[in-house]
Amino acid sequence: MVWCCRDMMGGFNHYVVVKFKDGVAVEELTEGLVKMISGIEHVKSFQWGKDIGGPDFLRQGFTHAFLMTFNGKEEFDAFQSHPNHVEFSKLFSPAVENILVLDFPPTIVKA
Amino acid sequence: MVWCCRDMMGGFNHYVVVKFKDGVAVEELTEGLVKMISGIEHVKSFQWGKDIGGPDFLRQGFTHAFLMTFNGKEEFDAFQSHPNHVEFSKLFSPAVENILVLDFPPTIVKA
Repeated sequence: MVWCCRDMMGGFNHYVVVKFKDGVAVEELTEGLVKMISGIEHVKSFQWGKDIGGPDFLRQGFTHAFLMTFNGKEEFDAFQSHPNHVEFSKLFSPAVENILVLDFPPTIVKA
Repeated sequence: MVWCCRDMMGGFNHYVVVKFKDGVAVEELTEGLVKMISGIEHVKSFQWGKDIGGPDFLRQGFTHAFLMTFNGKEEFDAFQSHPNHVEFSKLFSPAVENILVLDFPPTIVKA
């Protein structure tokens, strides 16, 4: 059962976790990110949030999660090399103190 | 626009990133996890995957991502304290070399 759904669903996930540098205008930056991603049709779904959860040792200094899904690896690659993404990265990257990225074909257990 | 959807949707995300210890039977463990989570009604959606993505410095040694969503913080709390979860943690925790957890009410930009 575990493997059925991944094979059936296809899809590709791009999950990014970030700690921003002190002094960064995070709200402004996430608004820009939302605008950039909303304008790229290859992105199937996008959600993000700021951790309000558990103990520090479990979040390891990270504060924000950005979760994007794509219909497949090709769409993800198209997003990665999209001019608007490349352009926005010039703003985003310098604001980041630490970043963790996992890219994977998801196994959907409960949809 | 950014804030509209979170307020409208409610919901709560539990995002977990793991690096397992060497020698751990990861497939067996994830099968147990899938079974445990499938049996807890408070979990609204669950997907997971193994990173096949980018460069090592972006994944920082982590390999697996697990994303659970809930209708709200109450359901998440019920999951956290569910006996099956507590019981499974006794198997899972010793297998983990490094873990990162972010818990957040999501802003859904694209559903």
